Amino acid sequence: MDASQSPSTATEPRAYAGEKVELTSFGATPVKFDSRGLVPAVVQQAGTGEVLMVAWMNEESLGLTLTTGTTWFWSRGRQELWNKGATSGNIQHVKRVLVDCDADTLLVEVDSPGPACHTGHRSCFFRELAAGAGEAHAQDTTRR
Amino acid sequence: MDASQSPSTATEPRAYAGEKVELTSFGATPVKFDSRGLVPAVVQQAGTGEVLMVAWMNEESLGLTLTTGTTWFWSRGRQELWNKGATSGNIQHVKRVLVDCDADTLLVEVDSPGPACHTGHRSCFFRELAAGAGEAHAQDTTRR
Repeated sequence: MDASQSPSTATEPRAYAGEKVELTSFGATPVKFDSRGLVPAVVQQAGTGEVLMVAWMNEESLGLTLTTGTTWFWSRGRQELWNKGATSGNIQHVKRVLVDCDADTLLVEVDSPGPACHTGHRSCFFRELAAGAGEAHAQDTTRR
Repeated sequence: MDASQSPSTATEPRAYAGEKVELTSFGATPVKFDSRGLVPAVVQQAGTGEVLMVAWMNEESLGLTLTTGTTWFWSRGRQELWNKGATSGNIQHVKRVLVDCDADTLLVEVDSPGPACHTGHRSCFFRELAAGAGEAHAQDTTRR
């Protein structure tokens, strides 16, 4: 069969950034959690590419995300698991989870019909830093 | 003038995720660097929305990114600033820098003509984690 005519299947890697994605198992690509047991997870709307939010996952929340098909994170402030949208109703439905070259960052493609930000904005990234408008104010903050 | 006909200017906030972006200065929105003085920075191709990579910025690299118009990061492993593409030639040209609701994560929109990943891939996210293919292997790793 002409490869260009092969039907798309659920297990066939789909392209990302113009390139085919390689399927990999946890065992083949151990996710490198940091010293706190966390990895940053970028949540992106499938199709549009909008980056909706960035949150943290530990091993348990990553497992729950993959098995339930909705996003689970680790709250650094509350020190507990949270299922995004469980309270607000704005559940994120997981399409796939990508892992980066160093296996220490995740990209979670979701379908998020509702707003992703607790402020009610579609994306948490609703502000642009204006260059030259001042100096960056560094401040150490307690981890959430 | 009809607002729908107003010309786009360099200072007019552009939409992101379907909503207008608010312009904010460093002073008005102090970036919250963590206890190491770092924030994660998601690098996204402008227009296509491809997430190319995630790296870390300290205050100095954020300042350099905004003033030079190319991306600068902090290497946790080498403990030094790096200008992405300075060696490979795959420089990323900064379009704008967004900051999230908690001001502890950055989204850097760039034009990256070349590959962003050191492996030669367009994006560092070229692998999909297959659900159910095994358990996540947690391992503490030395920070890069």
